[in-house]
Amino acid sequence: MAVVVNLEDGRERSRAPSLAPLTALVGDDLKRVNEVIIRRMHSPVALIPQLAGHIIAAGGKRMRPMLTLAAARLCGYANGERHVSLAACVEFIHTATLLHDDVVDESDLRRGLATANAVWGNKASVLVGDFLFSRAFQVMVEDGSLDVLRILANASAVIAEGEVLQLTTANDTETTENAYLEVIKAKTAVLFAAAARVGAVVAARPKAEEEALESYGLNLGIAFQLVDDVIDYTSTAEKMGKSVGDDFRDGKITLPVVLSFLRGGEEERQFWRRTLEDLDQKDGDLAHAIELMTRHGALRDTVERARHYGAIARDALGIFPDHPIKRALIELIDFAIHRAH
Amino acid sequence: MAVVVNLEDGRERSRAPSLAPLTALVGDDLKRVNEVIIRRMHSPVALIPQLAGHIIAAGGKRMRPMLTLAAARLCGYANGERHVSLAACVEFIHTATLLHDDVVDESDLRRGLATANAVWGNKASVLVGDFLFSRAFQVMVEDGSLDVLRILANASAVIAEGEVLQLTTANDTETTENAYLEVIKAKTAVLFAAAARVGAVVAARPKAEEEALESYGLNLGIAFQLVDDVIDYTSTAEKMGKSVGDDFRDGKITLPVVLSFLRGGEEERQFWRRTLEDLDQKDGDLAHAIELMTRHGALRDTVERARHYGAIARDALGIFPDHPIKRALIELIDFAIHRAH
Repeated sequence: MAVVVNLEDGRERSRAPSLAPLTALVGDDLKRVNEVIIRRMHSPVALIPQLAGHIIAAGGKRMRPMLTLAAARLCGYANGERHVSLAACVEFIHTATLLHDDVVDESDLRRGLATANAVWGNKASVLVGDFLFSRAFQVMVEDGSLDVLRILANASAVIAEGEVLQLTTANDTETTENAYLEVIKAKTAVLFAAAARVGAVVAARPKAEEEALESYGLNLGIAFQLVDDVIDYTSTAEKMGKSVGDDFRDGKITLPVVLSFLRGGEEERQFWRRTLEDLDQKDGDLAHAIELMTRHGALRDTVERARHYGAIARDALGIFPDHPIKRALIELIDFAIHRAH
Repeated sequence: MAVVVNLEDGRERSRAPSLAPLTALVGDDLKRVNEVIIRRMHSPVALIPQLAGHIIAAGGKRMRPMLTLAAARLCGYANGERHVSLAACVEFIHTATLLHDDVVDESDLRRGLATANAVWGNKASVLVGDFLFSRAFQVMVEDGSLDVLRILANASAVIAEGEVLQLTTANDTETTENAYLEVIKAKTAVLFAAAARVGAVVAARPKAEEEALESYGLNLGIAFQLVDDVIDYTSTAEKMGKSVGDDFRDGKITLPVVLSFLRGGEEERQFWRRTLEDLDQKDGDLAHAIELMTRHGALRDTVERARHYGAIARDALGIFPDHPIKRALIELIDFAIHRAH
C-alpha cells in the first residue's frame, strides 16, 4: 500500500508507516530472543512447552521484546546478550498475563486462534502462566541486575493491580476518561514502558536515558491501546484475527464508549446501559453503537487522543541523537496510529 | 492432652509435641511479619486487601514464615528485620499458590471457611494471586539479595511445574510412589525448604548451614504432606476444618491410595479405578476405602514414611549446636508426625 503520510514533524514518507524498519534493525536479535524463549520454556512436564508454545507461536508482533532490543541498541549496547535474555523475560511476563487474561475474560479466540484455555482448560492456563512468570524471574536473577528485577517486579504488580481494578469497574458506563486511562496504563502501557527501560539499563546509560525510554514506552503503549479500542469497532476479522464488536459484546468500556456516553443524551445513555451494563443486546445494536460513535466523533477523537500520546512518545526520544533505531521507533508510533485507518 | 511420647532420640517429653515452643520463640517476630503482610498487601484497589486479607487472616499455622524466622535466629541473625520482610514474602508466595490452587481444584472450603474463589469468583482469585506474587518479588528486590531472589524464584517455578504435573497425572491410580513424592516435593516441600534456607541467607552463614536448613525444610515438608494425606482419611471435621474423605471425593491419588492399590488384588484395583479415576462413587465407598487402607497397613506405613523423612530432617540439623530454636524445630518434626494419631 503506497500512500503519502503526513508526519507530524513535517517530513513525508512515501509509504504507510510500518514495523518493517524496526524489524529489520533488531531482527537478528529477535531471532535469538525466540531461541531463548523456546529453550527457557522447556520443562520435563510436556504440557508446559506445549501450551506455552501454542500461545507464543501464535505470534503477535513481539512488540515488547522488540522495545527492549531497540532501546538497548539505541543506547549503544553492543557487547553481550543480556538484552536478548531480558527481552525473553518481558515476553514471558506478557505471555503469562495473556494466559491469565484469557481465563478471566473467558475468551475462546486470540489472534484468530483458539486460546490456550479453550484447548487445555482454565486450570492449565493459570498454572502455565504461573510457571512462565516464575521462569521470567529466574532468568532475571541469572542476569543479576536488581534494577531490572525492580522494574519488572513493579510492572507486574501494577499490571495485576490494574486487572483487578478492571474486574471491579467493568461494565460501568460512567467510567471517566481518567479511570479508563489508568486501566490501559496498567494493562498495556506499563509493560511497554518497562520493556523499553530495561534496554537502557543493560546499556548502563544515565538515568535520563532510562527515563526517556520509559516515557516513550508508556506513551506508545497508551497510543497502541487507544487505537486497538478504535479498531475493535472498525476493523474486519481478517485484519485483526478477531471480529468487529468483540469489546461491545463483552460490555467492555473503552474510550469510544466513554466519549459517546458523555456526549449523548439520556436516551443514548439508556442504550449504552442496556447493551454494556446489562449485556442485553439484540440485532442491530452493534451497528447502532458504531453509528452513535461516528455521530459524536468518538472514534475520530479517540485516534486524536492516541496522536497526543504518540507526540509525547516522540518528544521523549528528543534526547537521543539521530540514529536508524530512533527513526524506526518514531515510525513505530506512526504505525500504531496509522492502524486506525 | 498429656501423653508420654517416645522420641526417636531416646528422650521423653511429658506432653504431646506441639508448635508452642517454636511459636513462643519466634512469636514477636511473627507479629511483625503479620504487620508487614497487612502493610504490603495494601492497594488502592480495595478488592486486593479484602480478598488477600480473607485468606491470610483465615490463618493456617504460618509454618513457612516461622521457618524463615526460626532459621534466621538459629543462625544467629540478630540485628535487622530482613528475616521479617522475607518471611512475609514467603507467606505471600504461599498465599498466591493457595489462591490459584483453590481455583484449579474448584474448592469451596479451606480450613472450614469459604474459599476466596467461592466468595469473589475465580477471576479475582487468579488476579489477586498474581498481585501477591508480584508483590513478593517487589519486597525481595527491596531487600536486595540476589541469593534470596534466586531461591524463591526457583521454588516458585518448581511449584508451578509441580502443579501442572499434578494436573496431567491426576486421578491415575497407577501413580508410583516416586511420582507421588515428586508431586508433594514440588507442591509443599520445596517452599518449606526455600523458607528455611532464606533464613540462613540473611544471617550470612556458610553454605553448609544454608543447605542443612534447606534439607531440614524439604524433609519436614514431605513429612507434613504425608501426614496430611493420612489425616484426610482419619480425622474429623473439627480437627481439620475439612471433612474426612475430601481427597477421596476429589479422586486425589495420595500415598495411602498408592500403597493400597499396589498391595491389593484385581478386584480392589477395580474399586480404586471406579472411585478415583471414574469418580463413580456411592454410599459406603469411602468407608470401604478406609477399610482397605487399614487392611493393607497403608495409613500406618504412610506415617512410617513420614517418620523416615522426619528422621532426615532431624539429622540435617546435626551441624547446629544445641539451642532452644533447634529443639523447637525438632519438636516441630514430632508435631508434624504426631498429628496422625
